[in-house]
Amino acid sequence: MADSRFALTELEDLPDDLRERISVIAQKSGFVPNIFRALGHRPAELRAFLDYHDALMERADGLSKAERELVVVATSGANHCTYCVVAHGAILRIRSRDPLLADQVAVNPWRAELDERRRAIVDLALALTRQPEKFGDADIARARAAGLTDDEIWDVGAITALFAASNRLAHLAALRPNAEFYAMGRDR
Amino acid sequence: MADSRFALTELEDLPDDLRERISVIAQKSGFVPNIFRALGHRPAELRAFLDYHDALMERADGLSKAERELVVVATSGANHCTYCVVAHGAILRIRSRDPLLADQVAVNPWRAELDERRRAIVDLALALTRQPEKFGDADIARARAAGLTDDEIWDVGAITALFAASNRLAHLAALRPNAEFYAMGRDR
Amino acid sequence: MADSRFALTELEDLPDDLRERISVIAQKSGFVPNIFRALGHRPAELRAFLDYHDALMERADGLSKAERELVVVATSGANHCTYCVVAHGAILRIRSRDPLLADQVAVNPWRAELDERRRAIVDLALALTRQPEKFGDADIARARAAGLTDDEIWDVGAITALFAASNRLAHLAALRPNAEFYAMGRDR
Amino acid sequence: MADSRFALTELEDLPDDLRERISVIAQKSGFVPNIFRALGHRPAELRAFLDYHDALMERADGLSKAERELVVVATSGANHCTYCVVAHGAILRIRSRDPLLADQVAVNPWRAELDERRRAIVDLALALTRQPEKFGDADIARARAAGLTDDEIWDVGAITALFAASNRLAHLAALRPNAEFYAMGRDR
Amino acid sequence: MADSRFALTELEDLPDDLRERISVIAQKSGFVPNIFRALGHRPAELRAFLDYHDALMERADGLSKAERELVVVATSGANHCTYCVVAHGAILRIRSRDPLLADQVAVNPWRAELDERRRAIVDLALALTRQPEKFGDADIARARAAGLTDDEIWDVGAITALFAASNRLAHLAALRPNAEFYAMGRDR
Amino acid sequence: MADSRFALTELEDLPDDLRERISVIAQKSGFVPNIFRALGHRPAELRAFLDYHDALMERADGLSKAERELVVVATSGANHCTYCVVAHGAILRIRSRDPLLADQVAVNPWRAELDERRRAIVDLALALTRQPEKFGDADIARARAAGLTDDEIWDVGAITALFAASNRLAHLAALRPNAEFYAMGRDR
Repeated sequence: MADSRFALTELEDLPDDLRERISVIAQKSGFVPNIFRALGHRPAELRAFLDYHDALMERADGLSKAERELVVVATSGANHCTYCVVAHGAILRIRSRDPLLADQVAVNPWRAELDERRRAIVDLALALTRQPEKFGDADIARARAAGLTDDEIWDVGAITALFAASNRLAHLAALRPNAEFYAMGRDR
Repeated sequence: MADSRFALTELEDLPDDLRERISVIAQKSGFVPNIFRALGHRPAELRAFLDYHDALMERADGLSKAERELVVVATSGANHCTYCVVAHGAILRIRSRDPLLADQVAVNPWRAELDERRRAIVDLALALTRQPEKFGDADIARARAAGLTDDEIWDVGAITALFAASNRLAHLAALRPNAEFYAMGRDR
Repeated sequence: MADSRFALTELEDLPDDLRERISVIAQKSGFVPNIFRALGHRPAELRAFLDYHDALMERADGLSKAERELVVVATSGANHCTYCVVAHGAILRIRSRDPLLADQVAVNPWRAELDERRRAIVDLALALTRQPEKFGDADIARARAAGLTDDEIWDVGAITALFAASNRLAHLAALRPNAEFYAMGRDR
Repeated sequence: MADSRFALTELEDLPDDLRERISVIAQKSGFVPNIFRALGHRPAELRAFLDYHDALMERADGLSKAERELVVVATSGANHCTYCVVAHGAILRIRSRDPLLADQVAVNPWRAELDERRRAIVDLALALTRQPEKFGDADIARARAAGLTDDEIWDVGAITALFAASNRLAHLAALRPNAEFYAMGRDR
Repeated sequence: MADSRFALTELEDLPDDLRERISVIAQKSGFVPNIFRALGHRPAELRAFLDYHDALMERADGLSKAERELVVVATSGANHCTYCVVAHGAILRIRSRDPLLADQVAVNPWRAELDERRRAIVDLALALTRQPEKFGDADIARARAAGLTDDEIWDVGAITALFAASNRLAHLAALRPNAEFYAMGRDR
Repeated sequence: MADSRFALTELEDLPDDLRERISVIAQKSGFVPNIFRALGHRPAELRAFLDYHDALMERADGLSKAERELVVVATSGANHCTYCVVAHGAILRIRSRDPLLADQVAVNPWRAELDERRRAIVDLALALTRQPEKFGDADIARARAAGLTDDEIWDVGAITALFAASNRLAHLAALRPNAEFYAMGRDR
């Protein structure tokens, strides 16, 4: 089977700005993550996706980078998104320097053992993930009670929202994770 | 209660490029849709959101503009997103020139009476909306059997994905629809 | 497509008592609501339905008339019943003198912004609507804590029950709302 | 605990017409079924409920009486309604002359072993019971393919609708089945 | 239809140890419960199943025997397992000396009227039955608050686990309850 | 936090037969899997659990050993059981000689890319896992159509049943996977 249900675009066939941007990522990882090959046939969408991703995942204030990946893995686990769990699980292992956390959160985000702050972050993400119509003031209050600022709450919610989209794109395309992701960051 | 749980940004306080961009929309509608006021405190995110939105909703090929709004209303109805149903319901009434369609699709997207092409579009969107982990080859096959091209299938899936994000941002913020949206496009 | 999956009965073909009764409604609305045309082929059932409806919806004590319609719209929204949402949404707009409330409650009854009494009424209705087996003393206690009397609690529960039936009759028949309902009561 | 969360009305305190009507039932059963004691504080509602019940359950055409009770037990089992399962389970045992059928249908209506006609009746009822928004042409088509007439389909749907109401009234009141019902009709 | 979808093994065809063991049960009941005939084609599995069953259901410490059957009936009711509800419903009626309890718990385990200790036992079982991924410290804390010891909590959890298996074996085989079970223990 | 919510039993404190039996496993793995430490306080239950496990997982006929682990990982993934996914994921990687399969099946058992036989095995397991009351003849027929024998169908069903129990024991105890399991079998 193929890496996507739709046409794949290789690095060299991308518009210049995207080729350069993805090249930087590819050099760091040692390979081109399949999500970029799968979105490449729609350059304008890929560009906006990358911009949105960077605005949220590379942001200096608010959540730490490991916490941002924690949100991604929790929401992707709850959405059973293989690509996002495997790829961002690898990043979470690296950013948290914890080789076990990603699998624990991906398999059972609702009850993974986490300290209070991380638990509050994951609970907030989960409250928006599967039944967003039930999200309410009580969820916000619980997050605040655990010490999250409104800026951090927005981060959690907005990352959850972006990966609600991302998970669905991966399901749409039956996107396969690159084999390299599975074992990354597993050594202590 | 306020129009959002988070800080609102008025038109005049946005960065120049966003102010100009939203102004065009505001002039057409006669008011500033609340979504822009609610996202304005994060200009980079708002810019990426607008780019993604325009790449999908203003695209020349593939689905018609009414069909794109149909996807939005169906997925937002299934996600019980008041802002998106009310705002995009108005746009759907205008673009489809049908004052009844939006309410029918928003209240019961699964069984609204639609012609075969529209039914296939809505069914595809719904298959990705609430249980994306069950999305599979059978959903793609049904869409193709109804005559949708792969380009159109991507359109439906990608719009569904973008509004999975959008619905969750609206739930996060408890975003209120502008009162003007409710009655727009209701005359035959 | 037809207004119902089953035979429709026009006003002039109803038994005398029903014809007179429906005529009064038709004169007020300016048209014969389709529910009566759809139930007319079973006069004994229509008669009992009307009696039950009037016993609950025209009752002098307990909930106000707007509150009774609020229960109907909330439960019908949760049951995705297009006929009941559109028809009773119109009545709720008129009785509450609020052109926005019905859409807000129908799209997301769980989190629509409501004052405490209305929120308690809607929560009680929702507790019986989709998973009635979980309805329990805690639901009753919450309603009482919000100031509802036992007589009002019965009103909410019994109206929810009647529209559990009504929603299912509409789904059974694929009953179409009369076009007139959609725009009624939308002016402030 | 009491037989209902709300006031109970004894036979002698009912309006004349209701007292006579319930007396006939009580004489046949040997006791006053608790549903009548629980609804008696609202005579107009009880009267309409009885009329609706008799219009559907005593109807000469269409489904047999055992089949009507089969619909009641299936839908009440799916709704986990103790009163309706126990009381109508007894009636189904008697009317079907089968001491085992009611428990089988109540515990697992989806997969109880039934002949084709009964299976079609129960499947139709279940399609309307828990997710009525998904009820559609395919459900009607399956019922017709099993030989049900449109008149019988209406019977199944309308009985399911009435007991959607009845189940919720019983859950509202935490209505207890009379002890006599449990063992009735258990001898072959 | 047959008593199982798979081969049945009669008492005389079982290995000696199993034949003797089942004979004791058969003599007490007056018949061979169908579960043993259905599992007999896999003697090693039947032996382990019986050992596990006896270790939990015949244990001297912890829960009373009636309480153990209460767990079985509650979890089997929530899993809609006809064989387990009918067979263990009979045993619960006998062990609790209450002819009504089993039907009440089987039809609606969530809201059956129970004293505080029994309610805590059933709630704990239910928390593990349908969504075990949500089982957490709060469930344990509620059980302890109702006075259950850790030894009793393990009993409830382990019996729930064993019957999660048992219910699925019965569903796998479409196992029919012996007709004798239905009426056992119904006299006061 | 601890490896279990309940008392842990170390190897040297187990009864002789269990100590010897677990020692063999511990020598092969290089550590004592936590499940044995967590069940050790109830030797009779642990003994029966091991017997049941061995009868199903070490069986010579029917499914291959890799296929048996596939069933375990699929059902444990659907039940979000961290211990079982991590521990049996490791075994599946080893037995299937495929370092990627386990994560793919655990994250999304419903849509993991599998050949026809494996897909049929997983689909059968899933049909019994979360809504066993809907398991029926159609599931059996689909398994047969993919070439599974009745003996293999029983294997799949019985393993699914055993791990329905096992998953719930792990959730009951909040059982932590040994750290060693996470990285086992990840090299090609």
